Amino acid sequence: MNVCWLLLVACCLAATGVVAADDSRAEPTTSEVLAASKPSDWRPLDPERALYLQMATGRVVIELAPAFAPQHAANIRTLVRQGYFDGLAIYRSQDNFVVQWGGPDSKRGPGKARAKLPPEFTVEWTPALPFTRLPDIDGYAPVVGFSGGFPVGADPQARQAWLVHCYGMVGAGRDNDVETGNGAELYVVIGHAPRHLDRNIALVGRVVQGMELLSALPRGTGPLGYYAKPEQNVPISSVRLAADVPMAERERLEVIRTDTPTFAALVESRRNRRDDWYKVPAGHVELCNVPIVVRPMP
Amino acid sequence: MNVCWLLLVACCLAATGVVAADDSRAEPTTSEVLAASKPSDWRPLDPERALYLQMATGRVVIELAPAFAPQHAANIRTLVRQGYFDGLAIYRSQDNFVVQWGGPDSKRGPGKARAKLPPEFTVEWTPALPFTRLPDIDGYAPVVGFSGGFPVGADPQARQAWLVHCYGMVGAGRDNDVETGNGAELYVVIGHAPRHLDRNIALVGRVVQGMELLSALPRGTGPLGYYAKPEQNVPISSVRLAADVPMAERERLEVIRTDTPTFAALVESRRNRRDDWYKVPAGHVELCNVPIVVRPMP
Repeated sequence: MNVCWLLLVACCLAATGVVAADDSRAEPTTSEVLAASKPSDWRPLDPERALYLQMATGRVVIELAPAFAPQHAANIRTLVRQGYFDGLAIYRSQDNFVVQWGGPDSKRGPGKARAKLPPEFTVEWTPALPFTRLPDIDGYAPVVGFSGGFPVGADPQARQAWLVHCYGMVGAGRDNDVETGNGAELYVVIGHAPRHLDRNIALVGRVVQGMELLSALPRGTGPLGYYAKPEQNVPISSVRLAADVPMAERERLEVIRTDTPTFAALVESRRNRRDDWYKVPAGHVELCNVPIVVRPMP
Repeated sequence: MNVCWLLLVACCLAATGVVAADDSRAEPTTSEVLAASKPSDWRPLDPERALYLQMATGRVVIELAPAFAPQHAANIRTLVRQGYFDGLAIYRSQDNFVVQWGGPDSKRGPGKARAKLPPEFTVEWTPALPFTRLPDIDGYAPVVGFSGGFPVGADPQARQAWLVHCYGMVGAGRDNDVETGNGAELYVVIGHAPRHLDRNIALVGRVVQGMELLSALPRGTGPLGYYAKPEQNVPISSVRLAADVPMAERERLEVIRTDTPTFAALVESRRNRRDDWYKVPAGHVELCNVPIVVRPMP
């Protein structure tokens, strides 16, 4: 079973206190919101945008975000289709920060992929960008919300929007030169959201299944959490585009839409917990504390 | 070497870009702030408030916060001195949430410790409370800052202050009844700060060394991240108060003071990164992104 979904359901198990019928302000709990959701509240994971990262311990599923990093997404697809990542490894696990894998220290060239890309750190903030605003204040961005299932920050005055470094978000490592990232070296956030990275590096997607296979890896003891010895590296068997995998071997997942009344109700259920365990509702929810739920397709 | 310190130093290795000498607004980087710190910017870890949680993989050091949870701290000390935790286990590891250990399902009674405690979820916000305000806005609390080396939220109107659920903070599990927590069952935050727990449960301290021994444990596959089979539990050899351990076997650690100009400079170095890698300084730092640095005593 999808672990994201499983964990959310598990969270909800502790949150199934029934709201008193005589409470006119009663709002549903997260589990009630999800139980009442309609098929149209969900979208299937697009196989053209889904990566399967295969390790000995299992499969990690990543959803790419070409709306925010189109050239990185295209380059990663090209790398994947060349088998670039097959046999490479996870070589960094820094506590409360990131796990990182791929090149660029491998001797493999980029092949048909590009060696450098422009810095896709922000996109233009236009009315054409799908966006559901989260009304709650945020210290790092004037405006925050969701676009196409991803957490987003925006500065309307600067006409910029960007993906946000929440837990599970995947980005393309780079050196000091902003054009040195090309998607051959990827990282995932495994700790408290390092929001200071926002707008400084290209986020390219999000782990939607198998996050625990990355987040619970032993931490590296070298500087920056790099594994001190090569034999500590965690091998990657392969990375495949879902569309290139036979149907029978694909994950059948769907992601909650972030532009629906159901999602708004989900957000409210996290802003103010209604179950019996909670005594003081927070009255606020931070962008990175809103779960963008993934589950097996019914 | 202390891992918190090691990781911070490692972070700083990537942040050693020298600020141009002709930049009149030049502020030091984190590594420069720490290198310039004085002995008086640090305090030794008090052995009467430090716990050693011993596992097969190593020792976790926890600093208790009796200023915020005096009865819990006292009860935990009583439990520890009875050997209550010795031979118990870590039985829960929920991704992006908490790792949990101890009772209450063990058949051990609390002995001389109390079975129930009043809910120490907040303390009175008075001028007597040591407090260094973080000027940056926060969505979950009207005021945030630091008190005695811990991250704190406060509501001056309600005359309340409370410890905040940042990464590495340790709390006392409870059931729905707010008096059911007594410190026999403890958890540590291993993911994005679950700030909705603030004021709903008693935080009792913080992991100051060995966090990676807890955060990288395999995730439990049962509901709420509980290990599905008892044999997956991770044994705890012992928990000891540092003061009860022979001097030669104690950790010699010091914690950065949070009420000094050095700490203010550290905060600013995280609010606006100055090294060459960063292109867009955030202009903001969230409470849980400020490192409260721990290092071996010189």
